Amino acid sequence: MSLKIVGFGPGDPRLRPPAAAQAIREGDVIVGYESYLRLVEDLLEGKEVVSAKMKEEVYRARVAVEMAREGKRVVVVSDGDPQIYGMAPLVLEMLSKYSWRPGVLEVVPGITAALAAGARLGAPLGSDAAFISLSPLLLPKELILRRIEAALSGDFVLALYNPIDKALLREALALVVRWRGPSAPVGIVKDAYRPGERTFLARASEVPLDEVDMRTILIVGNSETYVWDGLMITPRGYHRKYAYP
Amino acid sequence: MSLKIVGFGPGDPRLRPPAAAQAIREGDVIVGYESYLRLVEDLLEGKEVVSAKMKEEVYRARVAVEMAREGKRVVVVSDGDPQIYGMAPLVLEMLSKYSWRPGVLEVVPGITAALAAGARLGAPLGSDAAFISLSPLLLPKELILRRIEAALSGDFVLALYNPIDKALLREALALVVRWRGPSAPVGIVKDAYRPGERTFLARASEVPLDEVDMRTILIVGNSETYVWDGLMITPRGYHRKYAYP
Repeated sequence: MSLKIVGFGPGDPRLRPPAAAQAIREGDVIVGYESYLRLVEDLLEGKEVVSAKMKEEVYRARVAVEMAREGKRVVVVSDGDPQIYGMAPLVLEMLSKYSWRPGVLEVVPGITAALAAGARLGAPLGSDAAFISLSPLLLPKELILRRIEAALSGDFVLALYNPIDKALLREALALVVRWRGPSAPVGIVKDAYRPGERTFLARASEVPLDEVDMRTILIVGNSETYVWDGLMITPRGYHRKYAYP
Repeated sequence: MSLKIVGFGPGDPRLRPPAAAQAIREGDVIVGYESYLRLVEDLLEGKEVVSAKMKEEVYRARVAVEMAREGKRVVVVSDGDPQIYGMAPLVLEMLSKYSWRPGVLEVVPGITAALAAGARLGAPLGSDAAFISLSPLLLPKELILRRIEAALSGDFVLALYNPIDKALLREALALVVRWRGPSAPVGIVKDAYRPGERTFLARASEVPLDEVDMRTILIVGNSETYVWDGLMITPRGYHRKYAYP
C-alpha cells in the first residue's frame, strides 16, 4: 500500500520531471481532476483511473486514502505542484483525520503555475514573492484582500492564482493601483505551456478582466519591476552593489 | 545566437524536467556557479563551460550575454528555478542595459527549493505563501525584516531562503515567535533531494541555528499549520466548507 501525491507541472511533457512520470507508471490507481488527467493521458494506459470534477477534491482525497488502505498503490495527481493549491494538503489532512499512514507516503514536487507564467513573461519573480489564491471558495474574501494588502505593503511581487471571482479581482487590482500606481505592470498568462497559451502585459488600471479566467495567472511586480522589450523584469538587487554592464 | 536561462531543479536528475536537460545538451557554452554545475555534470561532456564562484553572478551574466552576442548558443544554469533567487533576472537586466536581444531567448522554469523542501516536510505550503531571501547582500536588512513582518501580518506561510546571516535569522525568528508564538512549527530542510539531505522540525523559539547553513530552507507555517506524525500540514481551507473524513 502506497500513496503518492504528484505534481506534473504545467502540462507540457517537457516540463514534467521523470519522478512524476515514474510515480504514475508505478501506480495501480490514478486519482485526479478530469481535465488535468488529460495532460498525462500518455501514462494512463492500463491504469484504474478515478477522475472527478472540480469542487470534488474532498471526494478524491477520501477515495485515494481508502484505496490505499485497501492495499493499492495510489497516485493522486495535480497539475503544477501538489502543495501549491493542489491536492497534497488535503490528502495529508485526510490521513491525519484517519490517523493512518501508509507504508509509502510521498509528495513529489512540480513546477507550479507561477513559475511557468513568470518564465513566459521574463523574470518578474526576481525578488521576494507572495503567492495568493483569489478563489473565495475556501478562504473568506476579507482574508484574501488582507493578504494582498500585506504583500503590497511589504513590496512583494504578487503571483495571483485562481481569479475566478471578477468582483474580488477588481478589488485586488484596486489595491494594486493604490499601492503601486495605475501604470504598475501586470503580467497575464493563460494556459502557460499548454495549447492556446496567451501571454500579455497590462497596466494595473487597465487589466482586461474579460480575458482573465480561472486558468490565468496574474503577476504584479514590486516597486522596482520594469518592462523592457516586452519582458517583465524584477531586479534581484545586484544594482545596489555592483555597476553593470 | 541564443540565450537560455535554465533551472534544473533541486539536483536529483529525477526532478530535472526534460526541457532543462535538452537546453543544456543543445548549448555550446554552459555558464553556472561551479558547485551547481556538478549537479548537471552528466550533460556537460564536450561543452565549453564557464564556471564561477559565488558572488560572481554579475560576471557570469555579462559573459553569457557577450558570448551570445558572438553568436554562440549560451545556456546559463541555476539550480531550482532560474527566477527564484537564480540567474534569470540578472541576465535579463543585463540584456536591457545592453539594449540587445538575442534571436532566441528563453527562461526555462524549474522546481524551486521551497517546493522541494515543502514536499519533504509534508505539505506546509498548502495555503498562500511568501518566499523571502534572508541574504542581506542584495537587499537592506530593514527591507527583509519588513517583508517578514508583512508576511506574518497577512498570515502567510513563509519560505525562507539563503539564511546566511545568523543575526538576521535570529531577528526573523523573533518576529515569528512574536506573531505566531514560541511553539509555531518550523520545518528545516538542508540539501533537499541531494546527498546528505536533512529534514527536521523545530518550535520557532528553539530552531538550532548551528544546523542552518546557506543551503538550508526554513518553512514557517501559518496560524493553521499543524504537525501530525512528523508531517507539517497547512490546510488549504476545505475544512471551512466540508465535513470530512
